Formats: sequence, C-alpha cells, structure tokens
Amino acid sequence: MRTWLRVAVVTLCVCIPLTTATAQNPTPDAVRPGWALALHGGAGTIPKDMDPKLVEAYRASLRHGLELGRGILAKGGTSLDAVEAVVRFFEDDSLFNAGKGAVYTHEGTHELDAAIMNGATLACGSVAGVGTVRNPISLARLVMEKSKHVFLIAAGAEAFARAQGVPAVDNHEFDTRRRWEQWQKALHDDKFGTVGCVALDTQGHLAAATSTGGLTNKRWGRVGDVPVIGAGTYANDRSCAVSCTGQGEQFIRNTVARDVAALVEYRSLPLADAAHAVIDGKLQPGDGGLVAVSKTGEIALVFNSEGMYRGAADAGGRFEIAIWGE
Amino acid sequence: MRTWLRVAVVTLCVCIPLTTATAQNPTPDAVRPGWALALHGGAGTIPKDMDPKLVEAYRASLRHGLELGRGILAKGGTSLDAVEAVVRFFEDDSLFNAGKGAVYTHEGTHELDAAIMNGATLACGSVAGVGTVRNPISLARLVMEKSKHVFLIAAGAEAFARAQGVPAVDNHEFDTRRRWEQWQKALHDDKFGTVGCVALDTQGHLAAATSTGGLTNKRWGRVGDVPVIGAGTYANDRSCAVSCTGQGEQFIRNTVARDVAALVEYRSLPLADAAHAVIDGKLQPGDGGLVAVSKTGEIALVFNSEGMYRGAADAGGRFEIAIWGE
Repeated sequence: MRTWLRVAVVTLCVCIPLTTATAQNPTPDAVRPGWALALHGGAGTIPKDMDPKLVEAYRASLRHGLELGRGILAKGGTSLDAVEAVVRFFEDDSLFNAGKGAVYTHEGTHELDAAIMNGATLACGSVAGVGTVRNPISLARLVMEKSKHVFLIAAGAEAFARAQGVPAVDNHEFDTRRRWEQWQKALHDDKFGTVGCVALDTQGHLAAATSTGGLTNKRWGRVGDVPVIGAGTYANDRSCAVSCTGQGEQFIRNTVARDVAALVEYRSLPLADAAHAVIDGKLQPGDGGLVAVSKTGEIALVFNSEGMYRGAADAGGRFEIAIWGE
Repeated sequence: MRTWLRVAVVTLCVCIPLTTATAQNPTPDAVRPGWALALHGGAGTIPKDMDPKLVEAYRASLRHGLELGRGILAKGGTSLDAVEAVVRFFEDDSLFNAGKGAVYTHEGTHELDAAIMNGATLACGSVAGVGTVRNPISLARLVMEKSKHVFLIAAGAEAFARAQGVPAVDNHEFDTRRRWEQWQKALHDDKFGTVGCVALDTQGHLAAATSTGGLTNKRWGRVGDVPVIGAGTYANDRSCAVSCTGQGEQFIRNTVARDVAALVEYRSLPLADAAHAVIDGKLQPGDGGLVAVSKTGEIALVFNSEGMYRGAADAGGRFEIAIWGE
C-alpha cells in the first residue's frame, strides 16, 4: 500500500506549476529510487523588470544548489547532509539574504538566524542573532549534534561556536554593496529574503534547513520564524519537511510549518492541499511561501507573494527552477 | 450543537485527578458562565518529603494566583488580562523559577524568557535572554501590542523595553539565596521550573502565558520552549490554549503546545485525550507537563514527571490546587 502510494505520488505535479522550468539533466546516472528535494531563496516582491543579468545569476545559483543537493541524495546521502549543504551554498552566495549578503540591521550590522531539523528523530538545532559565524546553518547543526540543547542565541551562541572550534569572522564580512544600498534607501524590495531546503533521502528520511539575515533595518534583536521550530522550519518522518520564507511574524503566529505537517498527518491531506490550506487560507496575500517534501516524495512550492526563488528535483528526473508564478 | 457541546464538556472531569484539591470558595458571587482557568508553577522532581512549611507556601501562592485569575474572569475580564496577571504574580514570587527567584546561569546571572498569545487573533509576543526586566511576561505583551514583531531577544529586547518606558532593574534583583544554593550544589531539584497560565473568558476567547528563568547553570544563551510559540506556549480560539513546563528541548522537538491544539482541531479529540497523546505518547517519562483549556471550557492538567505545581478553576465553582499526582 505504502509502496503503491509512493510510486503514485512521486509522479504528482507540484501545486504551483514551475512555468520557467529548466529541465536539464533530467535523469542522472545511477539514481536511486525515492529521493526528492526542494529549495527556496526567498519570497516577496521580486520585480519582473529585474536586470536580465541578475535574473540569470539567480537562476544559475538556484540550479547549482539543486545540482548540489541532487548529487548528495542520488548517491544515497542523507537528507540532513543535503539540506545543510544546499543552505551553506546559498549562505556563501551574496545574492541571497543569508550569510554573505545578509541585510543590514538598524545599527548597520548583521544578525543571522538559522535552523535545521532531522525528521527521523525530531532532533533539531536553532541559532538566532549571531553575527560572527560564516555559516549559521552549520552552527545550528552543531547545536543539534554537539549540545544537549536546541536553541542558542546571541553572544551565548557565539561562545558555543568558539567552544566548538568554529572560527570567528568579523561582522563586516557579511557586508555587500547591494544590501548596503537597500538599507540606505530602505527599499525592502526583497525584505522576505531567506534560503531554505527540504529533502527526502533514499532511506525515506526527511530533513529541513532554513537560514536568513532577517528584515532589512531590523532592530531590538528581532527574530523571525526561521529559528522557531514549527514556524519557519519543521521535519517529521510521519508527514513532511517544510521550510518557509516570508513575513516571519505571520509564520510564527500561524505555526505554518507545523500546521502543514499536522494537516498531512492528522487530516491525511495531500501535501499540496495542506500547503495551500495554510498559505492561501490562513495567511494574508503577500505574506510569503514555503517549500515542502512529504514522506512519499510529493513536492510543494507554494507562495502568495509576487515571486519566490525556488527549485525542485527528484529521482524521477524532475529538475526545475523558477522565480515568478505563472 | 456547539452550545450543547459546551454545556456537556464544561462538566467533564480533568484528566489527572487533583487528589489534594482545596475546594474553598466553590461558587463566587455573580459568576458569569463559561470561563475557565488553569495554571502551573513548574513540573519536575518535587521531593515528597519537602518541608511542610514550604509545601504550604507553594499552596498559598498557587491559591492566590488562582483567586487572582478567577477574580478577573468572573467579572468578565479578558483571558489575556487574566493570564498576564497570574504569570506576573508568579514572577514576583521568589518560590518559582521566573522573574524574582529565577535560577542562575553558568555565569551567575539570570536570563529570562516569556511568551503570551491571544487565541482570538493569534497575536503573540515572546522575549528570550532578558536580564533587566522585572516582569518578562509584560514585556512579551508589549512586544505583541506595541511592536510589529513577535520575538525579540537579548540586548535588543532590553533596548525595546527601555524605548517602551519599562524601567531597568539590576540583574542581581533576581538573586535569591535558595537558587544560589541550588546553583552551587547543582541540585537541579526543580530544574523544570516555569510558570504559566491559560484561560477562557466569558467572551469565549482563549489566551496563554508562560515565563521562566530556564535551566539552572545554563550557558551559551540557551533558550527553551517557553518563548517558542507552538512549543511551550500556544492559544487558538479554534481549539485550545496551552502552557507547558519541562525539559524545554523535548517540548521544542515535539512542538508540544501546537500538537495538542492540532489533535483537538484536526482529530476532534477531547482536550484531555489530546494532552495525554502528546505527554504520554510522544515525550519521555519525566519530561514534564502542561496545563490547557479548550474553547468549550475543558481543563487538562497533564504531566509525566513526579509532580507539577498546578491549579484549576472555572465558572462552575471548581477551585483546586495540587502538587503531586495520586
């Protein structure tokens, strides 16, 4: 029954068609059955008249991230390794509001948040308000695997990083001219910037990872949904893995990631229906979106904003990236 | 149908009998129909041979907290005002690990976390890692009502407090000899100390509030479940309000408060069954417990630790406090 379901569902279409899909390398060699991957690089108001060179840069980065995750999963790697690697890659790419390229706070600094969750064990790790760690997602994984805790913040999280041998970087390492100009103009043209990845591996285990620099011009130690397990990040082998991007406060109030998983687990909704029920039914238009993968390999890429940088791939040869809706 | 359900359910017994209940003032004058209240002062290993004078001090404080909440609700006050007032009262009582009486961190300081949620609107506010605010639960309410945000941490949250006119207190104001001795001995005899309150008001609206000093000897800016909406604190008029206490990491991994609400909303479980399904079915023995009130006035006080300081009252005249199980 479950095998039949998996076979049937893996072939399902994603709920929001990827109109600008790039279907290259559709079937890599030696693909094992059953893996699936989805990622995002943030949702929000993404101007359709964006410089074509910038559009191509985003596409190239999304494509590279998707290839990176596919490479790990297709070889039988774990979903946890895949989501961490993909999010690290986006953290290192200054195009996205996470790691290098993080937006500026009110004080002209950078405060980074990240979370990772293992759907097989519900183990998870979160960090919030860190400013001296190059890859917050890997620090979140250290919190999960090398501490008894789940959630470390601010100076304490940085002391933990040092105790774990994570080198300190100067906060100005996250500076970029583009984000500085946005901050100066308070343009907020991609204020929902976040990166995230969800994966199902060939062992049937789910994982989710999300990382962000938060809101442009944020102050007062504001933390959004990303490090709040159940809001921006959630994975549970009983249902699905979810990574969100958008107006963080709305995603916390609506416990969005956990709610999608609850609708899958307790109401037996198909993943896409669950995602739409929450994004379209509970949030306000423009709030943002999410990517999700279910235990049966369904993929959902759902948003109610103008666009969402996103991609999806699976063992059946799917390999698609997109930015805007239809 | 809903009216019938409310009438039927209000008469239900609580899932864990309050064996040491104090049934005084069973029916206050001019009680309006439909309100209900539950509170806790932490769960964990509470020695049964505790000094009888200390036991009586805890009982007196629980009784006072319950009277305070009852007074507000019975007069038609809001659930939000009731849960804030009750939690403030416990924060000011050095018996409990919240506000005055908070445990010591590894560095010999106090780092306080709190959250509040309005079930009618899903508005919520959280603070984590604050050390200079006498009543963190009221700062959480300011975050909810006076900022666009939901979650503020550490120095930023304190700057917000100052901007809101909340006076600064010296961190040593939270010092108490008893907690200092526990820290020195690393006794951890009530390491799950937290206070919380949930309420249904006569308008049919739910609210939840939770506040804590966290783990004795904590370090690295460790944050537990209390300020994580959906983990330690949650309220939603569609289902119930929940406040948790226990091994915070376990409550985050299992999104305990949101999961109880999801089982009520999506599986239509009675509140007590939902609470037991999560506390007994998903956590480890000894992890802790929760108090919850449903939209129909059901009350659940469920824990899998040796004891939980707790109390419950409702418009039907119920007024009970307890510490241990049967």
